[in-house]
Amino acid sequence: MRIEIINTGSELMLGRVLNTHQQWLCRQLADRGYTVNRQVAIDDSAPAIEGAVREALARAELIVVTGGLGPTSDDRTRDLIAALLGRKLGEDPAVVAHIEGFFAARKRPMPASTRIQAMVPEGASVLMNAHGTAPGLVMEPAGGKNAACRLLVMLPGPPRELRPMFTEQVVPILRERFPLPAPFVCRTLKTSGMGESQVEEKIAGPLRALTDAGMDLGYCARIGEVDVRFVTRGTDAQKNVAEAERIVREILGPLVFAADDEQLEETIVKLLTNRKQTIALAESCTGGAIADRLTNVPGASAVFLAGLVTYSNEAKQKFLGVRSETLAQHGAVSEATVREMAEGARDATGADYAISVTGIAGPGGGTPEKPVGTVWIGVASASGTIAQRRFNAFDRETFKNVTSQHALDMLRRQILGIS
Amino acid sequence: MRIEIINTGSELMLGRVLNTHQQWLCRQLADRGYTVNRQVAIDDSAPAIEGAVREALARAELIVVTGGLGPTSDDRTRDLIAALLGRKLGEDPAVVAHIEGFFAARKRPMPASTRIQAMVPEGASVLMNAHGTAPGLVMEPAGGKNAACRLLVMLPGPPRELRPMFTEQVVPILRERFPLPAPFVCRTLKTSGMGESQVEEKIAGPLRALTDAGMDLGYCARIGEVDVRFVTRGTDAQKNVAEAERIVREILGPLVFAADDEQLEETIVKLLTNRKQTIALAESCTGGAIADRLTNVPGASAVFLAGLVTYSNEAKQKFLGVRSETLAQHGAVSEATVREMAEGARDATGADYAISVTGIAGPGGGTPEKPVGTVWIGVASASGTIAQRRFNAFDRETFKNVTSQHALDMLRRQILGIS
Repeated sequence: MRIEIINTGSELMLGRVLNTHQQWLCRQLADRGYTVNRQVAIDDSAPAIEGAVREALARAELIVVTGGLGPTSDDRTRDLIAALLGRKLGEDPAVVAHIEGFFAARKRPMPASTRIQAMVPEGASVLMNAHGTAPGLVMEPAGGKNAACRLLVMLPGPPRELRPMFTEQVVPILRERFPLPAPFVCRTLKTSGMGESQVEEKIAGPLRALTDAGMDLGYCARIGEVDVRFVTRGTDAQKNVAEAERIVREILGPLVFAADDEQLEETIVKLLTNRKQTIALAESCTGGAIADRLTNVPGASAVFLAGLVTYSNEAKQKFLGVRSETLAQHGAVSEATVREMAEGARDATGADYAISVTGIAGPGGGTPEKPVGTVWIGVASASGTIAQRRFNAFDRETFKNVTSQHALDMLRRQILGIS
Repeated sequence: MRIEIINTGSELMLGRVLNTHQQWLCRQLADRGYTVNRQVAIDDSAPAIEGAVREALARAELIVVTGGLGPTSDDRTRDLIAALLGRKLGEDPAVVAHIEGFFAARKRPMPASTRIQAMVPEGASVLMNAHGTAPGLVMEPAGGKNAACRLLVMLPGPPRELRPMFTEQVVPILRERFPLPAPFVCRTLKTSGMGESQVEEKIAGPLRALTDAGMDLGYCARIGEVDVRFVTRGTDAQKNVAEAERIVREILGPLVFAADDEQLEETIVKLLTNRKQTIALAESCTGGAIADRLTNVPGASAVFLAGLVTYSNEAKQKFLGVRSETLAQHGAVSEATVREMAEGARDATGADYAISVTGIAGPGGGTPEKPVGTVWIGVASASGTIAQRRFNAFDRETFKNVTSQHALDMLRRQILGIS
């Protein structure tokens, strides 16, 4: 089965917006056993849209088109596709009512222009938009020179409208219209503390029987983590993936920190919540990036007490009690300082754990002894304080990402008692 | 002139990685007067790459292909394109030397597999990779059924290798090979405090003479800001864009906060640096997001003293001196609390300005009186403290983005004395 995604929008071609639809839709489909073969982005012009859709109609069984369903003059997708498929447009009273209700609920007048979004091509099914006004549309192109295409789905551009519409309304249609030939199971285990080749070296052999029997095994190296992905098909799919997971967890133990979409910050919040423990942060060079990640997790307030972003030496002294002699003797980027920062944050907040980070993010501030990228990370707890030196020589934002990943993983290991 | 981008990589089709190349390359090209017509992403397989490249060769004058130049078995781009264009591959001693030097500088042994990256198609120019081992390649397909294509550029996949290679090496080639028919000038002004339609209403009329004379005028609504983009061509391009900028700045005044790529946090750091003033933060619901943004700006340490992420009530009292009566009487999300937070952060750090934020990010924690999305923002300075209530009912991460944008803009207005 061939699947193509078409993203429309002149802003895409001008590089004004980032196309997050590609990754999101590809991932949603892949994890359900449907692999996308091609994604195309084009501008809003009629020739560009017609050209891309016409080619896909002749080639792909499923086409997903995003954008161009709104009320403005550059929203042309609906009209152009209806014309390409030879369907007339008619106003759908249910959609009109939905749009009216949308504005009424917000106590705002309904702009006349929005009514055009109720125009539905003959024979199309409507996907109501729970978070906006433009409905999605599902069409079944019928034979002829469009013989390849069995289903064409149009989705509105804004991600917060597109995403729930896809998972709640499109996925069930796909499952019905394109049943998988055999059960499909996909599972990702996330690991930390080893490189991609080390992970492969440890697990590829023990998984050989399963991969020989048809299981796909993939690796993906990310910042501070390596993902291991299993995909199996067939009647034993569930059993085989479970067996693969058992083998990997047995070999790697607590190096596996999460599965599927879980982020490391979610793992931390879960671990602490289950243990009814709390965390405080003392960040210098990461500048609040760790606090930001932890507080992205719903429910973080149950475990996260405070984050002290102590950029200046005075702030390190005042809020964390770092001693001026320590700063004078060892400098702000040193093991002695990072230890006092962690212990100071723990004492000041009464948290069970405190993470501290101090380093040189760059581009300025490096010295021959402490070049840009040098960073000390500390974790204080009832069992004492540990500190590690790392060298993360990247651009400023990557430095913050990598360092926050290292710090959160150090905390995770400390919580679990992994050396 | 027709331009197409082809991104290769099975991870793209599985949704394992986000394709940032599209936006970055499209933006780089558009801002220099070259508009991309189509972007295609496909997997690593030979039929997918051959199909996409063959179609583009027949259609586009410039093709940029990313990925698939590395040393592993799924890096097939170089070989497949050489075959498509009928060129033999030969080892380039300069590339071998570069790869050897790359590993020598890092005191790591050179894996034998990396040597394949020195294979260069006959007639191709090599773009040395300052940040990795795989060189970029520039080819000139010659006539025949590939008549459309005059230049095909292959770039390595990692962004930190691709980006400098493109700006430093590819752009000069494009300028030489595809000189613009007329001077091209592009300028973006970033505004805050008004919606897209309000901005358009104010400036479209006064800019009419310029747009009638051929200037493109575009709007792009983002979180808490609206971008206005002018594009002109011709001998008067520079003069016309300057005139458009003058008109917009005269009408909107300090609502224009930056130009081109500058972010609001950069504007703030610049403003404070020029005035030799300092800033402290007291964040609750934004959880460090504002500190994170400010510290993404190189040189932030000159103006940013400390950020206190006071998630718990105890932390608000201890670090900011918020009174327990205030919390008991008005609650943590209230004007009284946000004022005490800002003043407390300013007092505790001695900063010239302090921003405070307290609100309900959700999904839990809302009440009928203070629903999810309710947020108070305060700014304290020598001239007193101001506080505003906002209602940012979004998912958690969008809530943090929007609220941090509001808070930074409130600070900007306070610094500049804009009411």
